Amino acid sequence: MRMYDLIEKKKQGGHLSDSEIRWMIEGFTKGDIPDYQMSAMLMAICFQGMNERETLTLTLAMRDSGDVLDLSGIHGVKVDKHSTGGVGDKTSLILTPIIAALGVPVAKMSGRGLGHTGGTIDKLESFTGFTTSLSEAQFLDNVNRVGVAIAGQTANLAPADKKLYALRDVTATVAQPSLIASSIMSKKLASGADAIVLDVKMGRGAFMQTLEEAKELASIMVNIGNGAGKPTTAVITDMSQPLGNTVGNAMEVIEAIEALQGHGPSDLMEVVFALGSCMLQSAGRVHTREEAQKMMREVISDGSALRIFADFVEAQGGNPTEVFHPELLPAAGQKLEVLSPADGYVDSIDALAIGNACMILGGGRVTKDSVIDLSVGIRLLVKTGAAVDKGNSLAVIYGNDLDKCRQAQDIVQSAYHIGQRQVTPAPTVYQVIEA
Amino acid sequence: MRMYDLIEKKKQGGHLSDSEIRWMIEGFTKGDIPDYQMSAMLMAICFQGMNERETLTLTLAMRDSGDVLDLSGIHGVKVDKHSTGGVGDKTSLILTPIIAALGVPVAKMSGRGLGHTGGTIDKLESFTGFTTSLSEAQFLDNVNRVGVAIAGQTANLAPADKKLYALRDVTATVAQPSLIASSIMSKKLASGADAIVLDVKMGRGAFMQTLEEAKELASIMVNIGNGAGKPTTAVITDMSQPLGNTVGNAMEVIEAIEALQGHGPSDLMEVVFALGSCMLQSAGRVHTREEAQKMMREVISDGSALRIFADFVEAQGGNPTEVFHPELLPAAGQKLEVLSPADGYVDSIDALAIGNACMILGGGRVTKDSVIDLSVGIRLLVKTGAAVDKGNSLAVIYGNDLDKCRQAQDIVQSAYHIGQRQVTPAPTVYQVIEA
Repeated sequence: MRMYDLIEKKKQGGHLSDSEIRWMIEGFTKGDIPDYQMSAMLMAICFQGMNERETLTLTLAMRDSGDVLDLSGIHGVKVDKHSTGGVGDKTSLILTPIIAALGVPVAKMSGRGLGHTGGTIDKLESFTGFTTSLSEAQFLDNVNRVGVAIAGQTANLAPADKKLYALRDVTATVAQPSLIASSIMSKKLASGADAIVLDVKMGRGAFMQTLEEAKELASIMVNIGNGAGKPTTAVITDMSQPLGNTVGNAMEVIEAIEALQGHGPSDLMEVVFALGSCMLQSAGRVHTREEAQKMMREVISDGSALRIFADFVEAQGGNPTEVFHPELLPAAGQKLEVLSPADGYVDSIDALAIGNACMILGGGRVTKDSVIDLSVGIRLLVKTGAAVDKGNSLAVIYGNDLDKCRQAQDIVQSAYHIGQRQVTPAPTVYQVIEA
Repeated sequence: MRMYDLIEKKKQGGHLSDSEIRWMIEGFTKGDIPDYQMSAMLMAICFQGMNERETLTLTLAMRDSGDVLDLSGIHGVKVDKHSTGGVGDKTSLILTPIIAALGVPVAKMSGRGLGHTGGTIDKLESFTGFTTSLSEAQFLDNVNRVGVAIAGQTANLAPADKKLYALRDVTATVAQPSLIASSIMSKKLASGADAIVLDVKMGRGAFMQTLEEAKELASIMVNIGNGAGKPTTAVITDMSQPLGNTVGNAMEVIEAIEALQGHGPSDLMEVVFALGSCMLQSAGRVHTREEAQKMMREVISDGSALRIFADFVEAQGGNPTEVFHPELLPAAGQKLEVLSPADGYVDSIDALAIGNACMILGGGRVTKDSVIDLSVGIRLLVKTGAAVDKGNSLAVIYGNDLDKCRQAQDIVQSAYHIGQRQVTPAPTVYQVIEA
């Protein structure tokens, strides 16, 4: 087999066979196929696409390029949840203890934030002593004992994807649906869950800008998951404005704790319930989504979800007292209000800009090696659709450097578009896509 | 400027500006832009193309990446001729002394053969002692004194093209008209001629398979040449069957000598006269092509072209006696006839297969470093359109290894397609494309 011939075949619009794709991914991972040939292939794929079979095979080949976790030591149906990434997205923090409280084990691999999007691990590190460096034995034991464990992705999960993504990132070949889907799903499948629920974000702060694109990506991922024998569901949710009212690591943890106390903002809870219903259904725990929602509300109101959250934090080295006293979590020293420049209605809040403002405050990563400030962030006081008067507070900036706060203040003010007519906010949950 | 942005722009179908293309070619030549980014760009160009302006700028940037020869020390209008490569194409050997005999200086850079196509320098090395390693002073002096000089391409002519071509060769990005045209023209423009005549071959043994493709490539090259201020003409000629009756280095030299003695096969002479007319017209030596053809026939029949050929061989270290006694040139020791398997008519002769048969005999290069046997080759006794009886000789294989001769014999026999109805051979010269 020659890589040249495979590039030519894809360039001509042909379909790569299973053995061709496996040979290519193995050769690339080992370094036998040079980057310059793979980048030509990637660009050809951007133009010619991959069919369902090719995409599934690519995903499985990347999954098999490294370790595939064995979660059989965990009792019950393990359901994993993955978000394509957004701004203010703290759903994992709320969902995992709720699902665990309902008897469904959660064994989750999470990532750190990059660019304008945050990461679950960064947020959890707001708790003093919290760690995601668990041995495999500890990880499995924690899930069995507490119901939840969250680990950082180990280096040897889908190394082919890691290498391929690094190349896509510098050759303008990231934005191709089959490549995005196979990248996400190869890691999810290597993480060893029995079923997968995907949160596909859509809008200004997300990778997918239109419902059309989001549906396409969701369908491809659902096909891959089911093709690989893991029941997979995708929920398309809004990311035209940030989710919930806070953006910033410790601030989002506090909002998650409030949600587990029954005081979550409505948009955030709608996403939590939509994803949670799918997870409980995938696990065979409920028959209908309505039933699922009722049960989820119960474990919030009886406090059992919050207790599991505290147990989980403690089991991973964090201080559980901080769960019940979130005022102990990192807090920023400076505070600046963002005022409305006019009377009117909030037309839209640019989620990408809000994410960037948080990054400027020091709360996000510019590069993989950036050190982040967990205390900083932005509180949104009003959201899309709200009526405002000139001079009303729109948002509050929390930071530790006044210059950076002022920069963030400007960005956040511009991110709020104030119009003269009241708009109906976009739906929070658009669609559930199943096999 | 970031290469990433240029790749993305081209991927989206945008046009690269002059400064972007120059920056990219300079960066790539220096090694600042890695191969994996350039190969993604090349693949994007294969899908999105380049417009006339981009193609011209790319060509000029590649021309300027190395030395540009100064031929001002040669008296008169210097016309260069270039062929896109074919099988049995010995036109340069015949044309250059004819043109020189008519007072138009020929200062030519030539190449060696690769794969199924031959190269002028290899053919000329059939003469004992012949060399193309000339100093610049010798080269210019030879042209002024003898009328003709042919040199090998020096390493520093369009190095950007050399590097880019090597990358295209392994990433399936060779077959793109603007890339092919800019590659050829960057070297031609760096060679310093005042005017350029291009022989664009078309058919089974050539790069361009259809008249449509050949016309497109020819037009792009003519636009580049004229855009660069060098009057350029292209002639589209047939390569569906080999040109003339011989394929193989020394055998083609002998056929060229016979042509200069007035005994050239009609298809070969038609191409020689078509290209020569354009060269003489570009040099301002004649007004019409008819006039040009008449003059060319005269320098053949009065022997002056042949004498210049001998002078040229001698001036470059070769033995001129061999020009008048071609039986002294390298000759193979073995000979095998290829017989017609049936009664009928020669429908077509696969030029690519004939070229490959010559390569198997040892007469062509498999890699750049192959050592070739100048004596071997194939003589075609009948060509497309001829009537044959079963058992008639179609061709003769000349080689030095009986096993290889037998392999070549099989290939040549399969290359001859014998049909039941007489076909009209394709035209030898299709079209002249001018600015």
